[in-house]
Amino acid sequence: MAKTYGLDCPVARTLDIVGEKWTLLVLRELFLRQPRRFHDFETNLEGVPPSTLSARLKTLEQAGIVATRQYDSHPPRFEYVLTDKGMALGPAMLALRQWGTRFTE
Amino acid sequence: MAKTYGLDCPVARTLDIVGEKWTLLVLRELFLRQPRRFHDFETNLEGVPPSTLSARLKTLEQAGIVATRQYDSHPPRFEYVLTDKGMALGPAMLALRQWGTRFTE
Repeated sequence: MAKTYGLDCPVARTLDIVGEKWTLLVLRELFLRQPRRFHDFETNLEGVPPSTLSARLKTLEQAGIVATRQYDSHPPRFEYVLTDKGMALGPAMLALRQWGTRFTE
Repeated sequence: MAKTYGLDCPVARTLDIVGEKWTLLVLRELFLRQPRRFHDFETNLEGVPPSTLSARLKTLEQAGIVATRQYDSHPPRFEYVLTDKGMALGPAMLALRQWGTRFTE
């Protein structure tokens, strides 16, 4: 199965970036509180494999949706924040939340 | 990897239902035009395996997001429409579209 859709449609292109498993939940964490550290995501997203979490954060950073800030140097450690482009996903996140609140229990 | 997240959060519960690959694009087709037939999805969603498409439609029907209407009886064939619960995903779909229009090309 191809990793992305490759369809010429804004919805498909959005999902090419944020549609992989766990990605939107990683972003949800950042909408709830910033900055977040790797351990925060691991704690709150029960069941996410660390390698998957690491890959998703890297993809989001490469897409310009999250940015990193170094908070420790020995060893170097980073925390994550949303960029403006990431913050612009707020309405989509809110709409998914509202639907879930109304239609799921 | 678990099929669903199983997290107690409305966003996660929404993604448990519509977060699988292709599901939101199946819904996008229905937002663009209703009713849709199996062949319509196959035509417009280039690359979707028929078995995946069939599974996604069944999941959406079981979740009460799409409904089927029989349009032929020899052999029995069905077309798909959004229910009210499905139509309520409109704001999420629109938000994903707007983000894609603004931030992807």
